[in-house]
Amino acid sequence: MRELEVIERLRRIAKAPEARGLLDDVATLDTLVLTHDTIAEDVHFLSHDPPASVGWKLVAVNLSDIASKGASPLGALLSLTITGPGDWELDFLDGVEAACESYGLSLIGGDTIGLPVGAPRVLGLTAIGRSGEHVPHRSGALLGDELWLVGTVGDAAAGLALLEENQNADGPLVDIYRRPVPQLEAGRILAPHAHAMMDVSDGLLLDARRMADASRCAIRIELDRLPLSSAFVAERGQSLDSRLFAATGGDDYALLGVFPAKFNPATLSLPSGTRINRIGSIVGAGPRLVLTFGGESIELPEKLGFEHESFDTRRLSSSKLGHRP
Amino acid sequence: MRELEVIERLRRIAKAPEARGLLDDVATLDTLVLTHDTIAEDVHFLSHDPPASVGWKLVAVNLSDIASKGASPLGALLSLTITGPGDWELDFLDGVEAACESYGLSLIGGDTIGLPVGAPRVLGLTAIGRSGEHVPHRSGALLGDELWLVGTVGDAAAGLALLEENQNADGPLVDIYRRPVPQLEAGRILAPHAHAMMDVSDGLLLDARRMADASRCAIRIELDRLPLSSAFVAERGQSLDSRLFAATGGDDYALLGVFPAKFNPATLSLPSGTRINRIGSIVGAGPRLVLTFGGESIELPEKLGFEHESFDTRRLSSSKLGHRP
Repeated sequence: MRELEVIERLRRIAKAPEARGLLDDVATLDTLVLTHDTIAEDVHFLSHDPPASVGWKLVAVNLSDIASKGASPLGALLSLTITGPGDWELDFLDGVEAACESYGLSLIGGDTIGLPVGAPRVLGLTAIGRSGEHVPHRSGALLGDELWLVGTVGDAAAGLALLEENQNADGPLVDIYRRPVPQLEAGRILAPHAHAMMDVSDGLLLDARRMADASRCAIRIELDRLPLSSAFVAERGQSLDSRLFAATGGDDYALLGVFPAKFNPATLSLPSGTRINRIGSIVGAGPRLVLTFGGESIELPEKLGFEHESFDTRRLSSSKLGHRP
Repeated sequence: MRELEVIERLRRIAKAPEARGLLDDVATLDTLVLTHDTIAEDVHFLSHDPPASVGWKLVAVNLSDIASKGASPLGALLSLTITGPGDWELDFLDGVEAACESYGLSLIGGDTIGLPVGAPRVLGLTAIGRSGEHVPHRSGALLGDELWLVGTVGDAAAGLALLEENQNADGPLVDIYRRPVPQLEAGRILAPHAHAMMDVSDGLLLDARRMADASRCAIRIELDRLPLSSAFVAERGQSLDSRLFAATGGDDYALLGVFPAKFNPATLSLPSGTRINRIGSIVGAGPRLVLTFGGESIELPEKLGFEHESFDTRRLSSSKLGHRP
């Protein structure tokens, strides 16, 4: 597979410790964390997606990586292609601006280039955050720790499924698919207590397995404990199948944190409305992922989430749209 | 013009002081300088350009911005699209690695995405440098200062012209077009003495006018003083026309510095072989650009260099390739 060769080649180039082997959500420099995501039309977003929502999402998914390291948004450099007639780019920038304003991210530079009409749009953002005193990586999970999830899973995947049936679909599930909310404040408050943390973008199971890989541990997820929104349950119920859909759908931008057993989120001043739930534990050496439902072991589904031709694990889970070549 | 609207919109978003109004070569954060350039196939480089030279050039032109601020290379995030059959990406990465190794730049992160076969490749790099004690901007030129150029102009444009005649052309002019050399060490040594500094990427006259704009001054360039390489003179001579070609061709990655009248580069330990020449002066209020040749005033050519659909002035001068849509 050419992609794997390319990624292998990149890993060989990226030898500096700041690169963290291209295995974490972010690179670190001084007190800064840095991440870059690129999205392409017909690959990571649909041509008929509202351009403002594409702009919002590009910013929000980068900020989700910043959030997962407990960092605060600082600045961003935008790479914008301009193509075709119409106001697509201006509308896209409305979404970029709204997200930047909402989360206190300053646009400080970047580049625009023209592309031939008809070429797919390619949009990139380098986001920079100021880290707190402790930057939790993926690799710190220890035997006996517990696994917590901030936010819910499945909403965005359910919203995308609605849009695939009907591109005019709307409602809360479509909204969360289009306008994900980075858990910045929760991430900042939780990071000092976390042994490991990352954001869930490609599917809870896939991202949990990545954490198990990085921490060389066995992670058990209890599917009964998955937090599901009322809108999700109303649309898809909460059967085992629905829970597996939610756990593999991706685009959640929830935070997956590993904390010591004594951790009690009630002692922290998390933002009002924060959903934080224990969903599993670190149960042994690994890397391994174990699922249970109703106290019984469940076989892992064939697809844990959306794998990417990415040399890091920091790209948009929206690349799972199924429009990838 | 849509592009201008987009750029205007971006300027309105980029209100933070670190953005420097999107008017400088770099953004600044703490002791870091940051720049991002994106290049696209058939826009900024030719499909038949050797991929390793495209990789080298993407790194080198970003480093030229770092050099122009007297900063030292630190880290980079790469955005790489993967498309089509063949080893293009691996060969491209050979060039990226060679440039990173040559200049001590660590690849610390980034993103790869798949694109449909046939879509133009889009490649981006965010380069980060550590600034010295003084970061010269474009805006510091003062009446009575003198204008100096580090490097030569015209070589790359002459090399591109040779390639446009014959895509198998070779020789020193083609080499410098394909493998520009960022003036990092000279930039680092000169920056503490400079009132203003930038790199020449889009054409000396265009970039000098940008400096005049930022510093609100009148800059006089004496075309007789332009440093031309032996290879350039052998190919194109040194008539006024040749000098205007060299002054507007771009892709030079020379440094344009404004220094006080007492400045004497002979007192500095510039790298062996550094060509540094006084080519003009700050002669009054502006913004204005004035040309002379043989002591006589010369009318400005219609095209000063290669204008871009860029919201900053920090993009690849290779976007002048004339293959832009």
